[in-house]
Amino acid sequence: MSSHFNFRLLATDGDARRGEITMPRGTVRTPAFMPVGTGGTVKAMYMDQVRDAGSDIILGNTYHLMLRPGAERVARLGGLHEFARWPWPILTDSGGFQVMSLADLRKISEKGVTFRSHVDGSVHEMSPERSIEIQGLLDSDIQMQLDECLALPAETVEVERAMELSLRWAERCKAAFGDQPGKAMFGIVQGGDVPALRERSAEALAGLGLKGYAVGGLAVGEPQPVMLDMLEIVCPLLPADKPRYLMGVGTPDDILKSVARGIDMFDCVMPTRAGRHGLAYTRRGKINLKNARHAEDMRPLDEESDCPAARDYSRAYLHHLVKSGESLGGMLLTWNNIAYYQRLMADIRGAIETGRFAEAAAAISEGWARGDLPPLS
Amino acid sequence: MSSHFNFRLLATDGDARRGEITMPRGTVRTPAFMPVGTGGTVKAMYMDQVRDAGSDIILGNTYHLMLRPGAERVARLGGLHEFARWPWPILTDSGGFQVMSLADLRKISEKGVTFRSHVDGSVHEMSPERSIEIQGLLDSDIQMQLDECLALPAETVEVERAMELSLRWAERCKAAFGDQPGKAMFGIVQGGDVPALRERSAEALAGLGLKGYAVGGLAVGEPQPVMLDMLEIVCPLLPADKPRYLMGVGTPDDILKSVARGIDMFDCVMPTRAGRHGLAYTRRGKINLKNARHAEDMRPLDEESDCPAARDYSRAYLHHLVKSGESLGGMLLTWNNIAYYQRLMADIRGAIETGRFAEAAAAISEGWARGDLPPLS
Repeated sequence: MSSHFNFRLLATDGDARRGEITMPRGTVRTPAFMPVGTGGTVKAMYMDQVRDAGSDIILGNTYHLMLRPGAERVARLGGLHEFARWPWPILTDSGGFQVMSLADLRKISEKGVTFRSHVDGSVHEMSPERSIEIQGLLDSDIQMQLDECLALPAETVEVERAMELSLRWAERCKAAFGDQPGKAMFGIVQGGDVPALRERSAEALAGLGLKGYAVGGLAVGEPQPVMLDMLEIVCPLLPADKPRYLMGVGTPDDILKSVARGIDMFDCVMPTRAGRHGLAYTRRGKINLKNARHAEDMRPLDEESDCPAARDYSRAYLHHLVKSGESLGGMLLTWNNIAYYQRLMADIRGAIETGRFAEAAAAISEGWARGDLPPLS
Repeated sequence: MSSHFNFRLLATDGDARRGEITMPRGTVRTPAFMPVGTGGTVKAMYMDQVRDAGSDIILGNTYHLMLRPGAERVARLGGLHEFARWPWPILTDSGGFQVMSLADLRKISEKGVTFRSHVDGSVHEMSPERSIEIQGLLDSDIQMQLDECLALPAETVEVERAMELSLRWAERCKAAFGDQPGKAMFGIVQGGDVPALRERSAEALAGLGLKGYAVGGLAVGEPQPVMLDMLEIVCPLLPADKPRYLMGVGTPDDILKSVARGIDMFDCVMPTRAGRHGLAYTRRGKINLKNARHAEDMRPLDEESDCPAARDYSRAYLHHLVKSGESLGGMLLTWNNIAYYQRLMADIRGAIETGRFAEAAAAISEGWARGDLPPLS
């Protein structure tokens, strides 16, 4: 614990970094994966399971929480940690990404964005200042600047406009956030798939002297090599002594390759969403429990896992639950997936510490490529 | 544990009975409530939670399990206990009730019932013998005879026909079940709301010398007083040294009043189904978490409960989860409800043991009538 937000690097291995963020609510071991706790709940999991799986920090979605139950209400109820029974660190996004993807009738201007709630049709205004205010009401430990995130492909002129707007909003968010020693406000590098724009964004943000930096606008439709190219351009331009967060990413393979390029933090709905759709992430790759090959397979997903969902339940039972639409299926597979992601992060951290990240990454990838156990004959 | 299925009465208080069923897979303390584990899962709960809440036995639905994953498949996978990770006693219904309520194109004859699966449209035949065969494949500890259960109100001539058919099927089920010392096959008293038919059914079944007796065809549309009248007619006609199971019942109040009339076992989807619809059963009555009065109420459902769902989560958070359709809402309320039902059963058992059942029942009813805590001002 620490009264100040602080990041320190404990080890590096190539460009991969092993670090530690300390803040009043706890320590985040990096590289870190943050399960997405959209509306104050990591879907289909108990917070105890999220924590026990090895999560140091979760993500809350400002857009969802401002609409329901409402930021002022969460504040009256003692903040998001108390409300959702997660006393450890929480990072909130700015709300901008979901405004763009979920809200109706959005109108963007220099001032901010106006939109209509997808829940009840009410009209809301979100400025950089209001986003920071909301994140403060939620009592978020790591707050994100409001930005404009485009889907790719997009016209360069559009990408540039959105990136420059995001930079100006970063400055306004910094001013609105002010001086809060125990918390942090991260800027977000934009610039789409245009190297020069990514450079301009990273350099300008670095000049703001923020406590952390995110890379946004990736994993939004572009091929993985484009994402990795952008990371290779951006990461060297970001201060080495600040955490780097790749937003909304990704598959286990995305994570492995992004850590190799200097990323410290990740969030993604994939493990939770896939879990509700019958998919299990394992060291043997992704397993589709809907597949008939599992129908009479009494083996667990992974007999060596220390997650009960992976170790104690037969594939046959999981198959049955998924095929029958039973909620326990989604509960177990989400649990398995978060546990697998956190196991992966722990393995990554251990490998960096001991200077064998490249070998470990190769071995992990090889495990995925070998694929699942052969079917029972 | 016991190698034989055995029931013994430990205490009585008026007509209320405190007993114990012992069988190879465990002991069932009666009066007992059996959570409904429809398709091999008590919806939205982990089996550990079901057990820890105080459940000695759960119910499996033969109709659901025979269609998916299939009785022969469950047998190949080691039986329902192994499949669903519930090593303790399981009671299965005969499948008849769900055939009547869920299946299409059902045709009933002396031989049995033909129906079309609501899952995939396949055609199935269910005879008394096949029902027992399926329950054996599931490795069920307490198996139920196939019966015909009518919705009430119904014409007396129809009620009589169905009751007489059910009696003939009871004999065939008894023969099909044969001699299985560690297990039991229960007969089912039918006869609708017609006292003379209930008497005829109870007496004829008692004459078969079965290991246990159920009362079926109640809580199917008739008012509670009719149900209680039927219990007052039936219970005295059933052998005192055998367990009595009131099928598909009921509310906490139904249970209290049925125990008072000599019933030992209950099952009902109410606590699990209501939990998925935002309703909590508590010692202060039923609480609708959708109600806006809970939106900023940081108090738990019941601060004195030893169930974490009741004790550790605020009503405000539960309200939010329910309003947002988050699965954690259903998970927590189902857990609360099963824990409350089992707490009620434990209190009932304790009261009978100490000869103060009537006072305890009055105090419990008074708690429900007093209602929920006053809203926060």
